[in-house]
Amino acid sequence: MAIVTLITDFGTRDGYVGEMKGVLLERCPTASLVDVTHDIEPGDIPGAAWVLGRVWGRFPEGTVHLVVVDPGVGGGRRAVALEQDGRWFVGPDNGLITRAIPGEPSRARSIDTASLGLAPASVTFHGRDLFAPAAAWLAGGGEPDRVGASVDASGLVRLDLPAPERIGAAVRGHVWHVDRFGNLITDIPGAWVSPTALVEVGGEEVSGLRTHYGAAEDGELLALIGSGGTLEVSVRNGSAADRLSAGRGDRVSVRTHRD
Amino acid sequence: MAIVTLITDFGTRDGYVGEMKGVLLERCPTASLVDVTHDIEPGDIPGAAWVLGRVWGRFPEGTVHLVVVDPGVGGGRRAVALEQDGRWFVGPDNGLITRAIPGEPSRARSIDTASLGLAPASVTFHGRDLFAPAAAWLAGGGEPDRVGASVDASGLVRLDLPAPERIGAAVRGHVWHVDRFGNLITDIPGAWVSPTALVEVGGEEVSGLRTHYGAAEDGELLALIGSGGTLEVSVRNGSAADRLSAGRGDRVSVRTHRD
Amino acid sequence: MAIVTLITDFGTRDGYVGEMKGVLLERCPTASLVDVTHDIEPGDIPGAAWVLGRVWGRFPEGTVHLVVVDPGVGGGRRAVALEQDGRWFVGPDNGLITRAIPGEPSRARSIDTASLGLAPASVTFHGRDLFAPAAAWLAGGGEPDRVGASVDASGLVRLDLPAPERIGAAVRGHVWHVDRFGNLITDIPGAWVSPTALVEVGGEEVSGLRTHYGAAEDGELLALIGSGGTLEVSVRNGSAADRLSAGRGDRVSVRTHRD
Repeated sequence: MAIVTLITDFGTRDGYVGEMKGVLLERCPTASLVDVTHDIEPGDIPGAAWVLGRVWGRFPEGTVHLVVVDPGVGGGRRAVALEQDGRWFVGPDNGLITRAIPGEPSRARSIDTASLGLAPASVTFHGRDLFAPAAAWLAGGGEPDRVGASVDASGLVRLDLPAPERIGAAVRGHVWHVDRFGNLITDIPGAWVSPTALVEVGGEEVSGLRTHYGAAEDGELLALIGSGGTLEVSVRNGSAADRLSAGRGDRVSVRTHRD
Repeated sequence: MAIVTLITDFGTRDGYVGEMKGVLLERCPTASLVDVTHDIEPGDIPGAAWVLGRVWGRFPEGTVHLVVVDPGVGGGRRAVALEQDGRWFVGPDNGLITRAIPGEPSRARSIDTASLGLAPASVTFHGRDLFAPAAAWLAGGGEPDRVGASVDASGLVRLDLPAPERIGAAVRGHVWHVDRFGNLITDIPGAWVSPTALVEVGGEEVSGLRTHYGAAEDGELLALIGSGGTLEVSVRNGSAADRLSAGRGDRVSVRTHRD
Repeated sequence: MAIVTLITDFGTRDGYVGEMKGVLLERCPTASLVDVTHDIEPGDIPGAAWVLGRVWGRFPEGTVHLVVVDPGVGGGRRAVALEQDGRWFVGPDNGLITRAIPGEPSRARSIDTASLGLAPASVTFHGRDLFAPAAAWLAGGGEPDRVGASVDASGLVRLDLPAPERIGAAVRGHVWHVDRFGNLITDIPGAWVSPTALVEVGGEEVSGLRTHYGAAEDGELLALIGSGGTLEVSVRNGSAADRLSAGRGDRVSVRTHRD
């Protein structure tokens, strides 16, 4: 009973996700479908890459991650199935795997309707016509080579993400993601931040790391090391994103505190 | 392991969907529950009919589609279970099946608490008290005749949907659905539209069909044949609905392009 | 195949729910995951307690309810696993069980990473690091005593909910919950309200109970006994909450109608 997870920007109210689920279950009745999210903002490839990066390795080996945020559908972008650590990644080759697969996958195939014995795909909905059948094929234990031709894994598309830097005792990084709670999750590794560091973002400064949200007062701005292992700026029982008018890509500075 | 899909306007934050899922699993532990959507606008029967029309046939035979958008709950509207092509449709008889079952279903039963051995239903939540138990009964392989008395399938309620017309070389149709991306999905069959046709909607004109979204410039209005086989008007990486202030039911005209 | 239901305030677009689902399936591959809701407002413990109160008993014995609305994560609040009527409740001890477990649970354990053989938990995401592994352990048939030490069930945290009162022929109660449709669900038992009672809320008065929503005119304010067995104030095909500017905790009065 293979797991197929779904990450899309389709929402659910139009039935597109339902169509994909039907195709998956028609072709692989034993698949166990797991909704990760359908609430990625329309066309937000970095947002989906973020989610995939967080979740993929939590699922057991054999899982197929079906990821469809696909503004280039029907054009020249490739459709690919990639394997890493026993999990498959199925979707358009447009940068969705940037966080999940920083190196080269162990296998990389293009997805080909003819090879899979499928009807020609529509020009607007490869999630249903191409990616779901490929994911069902893999989830059902089908031979990966039948998915399509081998592709050069070194040419996979990646997002150009900014990287944090250390400049002497200072660190310059960025807001990577703003979550539902308004937490600003940065790209600065926790190991780079001393417990007494000064953190600056959005024109405000936070002094020192807290051990948990509740160590701050209600409505107070705070910094801590988040569940992904990087520096996070939060407001207790509030939104740091609203408070600082900060968003993805904004600069974050850290310096060692000296009195 | 029968599949039960769920389409409702309940959202999820009140627990109503959770109650239905509990009832389904209590009565049919082997059912595989598949969320299609709970984000239908409150009371939007045409919106749910649209989704059901798109998804029902994608699921394998034996699937039970549980569809509850039910502003008339507790009143005189009938509760029905209908079979078509090996799939069951369970819900209120208020037009939800208009797109999915254009002809007559092969079987049609009313749903009756007494016949199913249920307690009397509440007056406000037949999804939990009537439809979920009936869906569980059918998913578990129960005898369909036990659901309730046979009903005259010719009397099922249908929505009065406008139909597209051909007038000489011209076509007059309508916006059927606006999806999450702001695409205007029309009722005009793709076969009625020549690749060089002029499409008019919301006071703007689009010349010619594109092969896919990416064939247009960013922000450009375009027309193509969508994944449901009908004419669709879109804005690349934008919302045609916003751009044209257009919505469900609006007129769409197509005429053959003549220089 | 044990059922694990999920109730959180995480939304889905950040991947937090996906991480939890991965952990659950990695540790208990046979678990059947059921989304109840991830749309609880951030930090809204009463809202989650409402949902849990409605749904828990609808699911079959053996179900594990994983409920994570946890503004106090990482601080002193306890992590607990509680059993009642054959269902388990796993989450922070912050009042989430107030409606579901009004008395004492039959078993109450704290959740301990060491006892479960887990790595130390992050300070911000016990849903993934503590509660999901504990739920997977219980769903997989693990020995409940291994979850952690026994705790004194009489000390579990409860929300301080107002109670309805009868004063002679009059009843004073409160709005307990506002649902997606704008229905005002009160704490006044249906048995306390005569069919001809006058109901007052938000400065407006409704005379008599209706049998169902459709018994009122479109847009008319009405009162009826809802699917949870308590008095409910609604607007047919509209929102009573908007119409009366009413919300959770607002006073509701009922008096016997006398001409």
